[in-house]
Amino acid sequence: MKTAQILIIGDEILSGRTVDTNSHFLARSLFVRGVRVLRIEVLPDQINFISQWVHQNHGLCDFTFICGGIGGTPDDITRQAVARGLGVPLIRHPVAEKILTNYYQERSNADRMSMADLPEGCELILNPVTQAPGFKIRNIYVFAGIPKILYAMFENVKNDFAGEPLFEEELNILVGEGDVAIHMKQINKEFPLLELGSYPTLENDRGYKTQLVFRSQNKILVASALKRFKELAGEK
Amino acid sequence: MKTAQILIIGDEILSGRTVDTNSHFLARSLFVRGVRVLRIEVLPDQINFISQWVHQNHGLCDFTFICGGIGGTPDDITRQAVARGLGVPLIRHPVAEKILTNYYQERSNADRMSMADLPEGCELILNPVTQAPGFKIRNIYVFAGIPKILYAMFENVKNDFAGEPLFEEELNILVGEGDVAIHMKQINKEFPLLELGSYPTLENDRGYKTQLVFRSQNKILVASALKRFKELAGEK
Repeated sequence: MKTAQILIIGDEILSGRTVDTNSHFLARSLFVRGVRVLRIEVLPDQINFISQWVHQNHGLCDFTFICGGIGGTPDDITRQAVARGLGVPLIRHPVAEKILTNYYQERSNADRMSMADLPEGCELILNPVTQAPGFKIRNIYVFAGIPKILYAMFENVKNDFAGEPLFEEELNILVGEGDVAIHMKQINKEFPLLELGSYPTLENDRGYKTQLVFRSQNKILVASALKRFKELAGEK
Repeated sequence: MKTAQILIIGDEILSGRTVDTNSHFLARSLFVRGVRVLRIEVLPDQINFISQWVHQNHGLCDFTFICGGIGGTPDDITRQAVARGLGVPLIRHPVAEKILTNYYQERSNADRMSMADLPEGCELILNPVTQAPGFKIRNIYVFAGIPKILYAMFENVKNDFAGEPLFEEELNILVGEGDVAIHMKQINKEFPLLELGSYPTLENDRGYKTQLVFRSQNKILVASALKRFKELAGEK
């Protein structure tokens, strides 16, 4: 199964101003395409942090996704940081330049045109919403941070990710997870290739509800484990 | 200013089943107490990933917060991972044992009691909701992943974080950020100790709105920079 990591650039998330929903969108979109996200990280808008992260980490997963910081203001440092992290120069991309010139017309200025300065060797990821493109270089996909633009950019590259998805089944039971831990251990023993997670929620102060999630690339394994769990737990 | 990092444990977040809101709660709660969060990371429920992360990273910030995975089911590995990452044994904590015994009474079992197995030398973080405690060891605070319990646990330790908060002012303007980038550069030149962020949103396909955030530990600096920005941008 292919693996991925997601880097979200954003002081506004680290300071608690904004809830990050981009990582959730990407995690779900990748999961259903059979790509397993192994980590999500949020870092500040600081070029040294981001370039160092890219340098150290981009090779650790099959795909790396970076969201945010590709605009034309001084706090947008992702284009520069990716170039620096990979050790390639930032160059004025001729196609991106043309796109921005056509789009902004008389509203064009040096700051806006700087969005065409991209790491040498990248391919554009087109942006049908506000035109300023994202880009792909090696295994790194760089998207805008505005959700609506991110979704549209992802749509343009989604066919790069076409693996076998994991199958999931969930079971909701009205007992605490401490009551079914023993059955979970038995399932782990009998189905070593299955992943079994338990997610407790509080229904009220002492009434528990537990959601169990059975997960595997093998659909039959998921169904068998679920059936066996129900037997063990006396659920119907 | 003190610094912090947040580690969220959760397959369910990486697979896109669940939106993580715990990191947002912590980021905001720390920000208003003058603690700067330098990164948020989400990792899978895998003991090797978590123990390695703790080993490598816990010393990088003043405070480390870990959320999730402290229950009593086989996919709960945080207690073990923190112990392993710090190179200390997991021991049955006598006070935690007593709390759990009193709480569960006849519903007690070995899995539930395993929630009293904690890294040697830790202090408990009490949980008024479901009793099973979190813990603090060195600079690491370990909380439950259920939001309601996390909030209650944080309440019990919040006085550990009592620094000078950052001041923030925001300014919303109805132009694209590309139009004010030039003024932002001027502000950065005149106020090198200020942090200035711009957060564009799409009002409609070509109508932009930009939120500017002025941030500093010095309130007067924030007010002066905001005033100067308004002059430059011709805003009232």
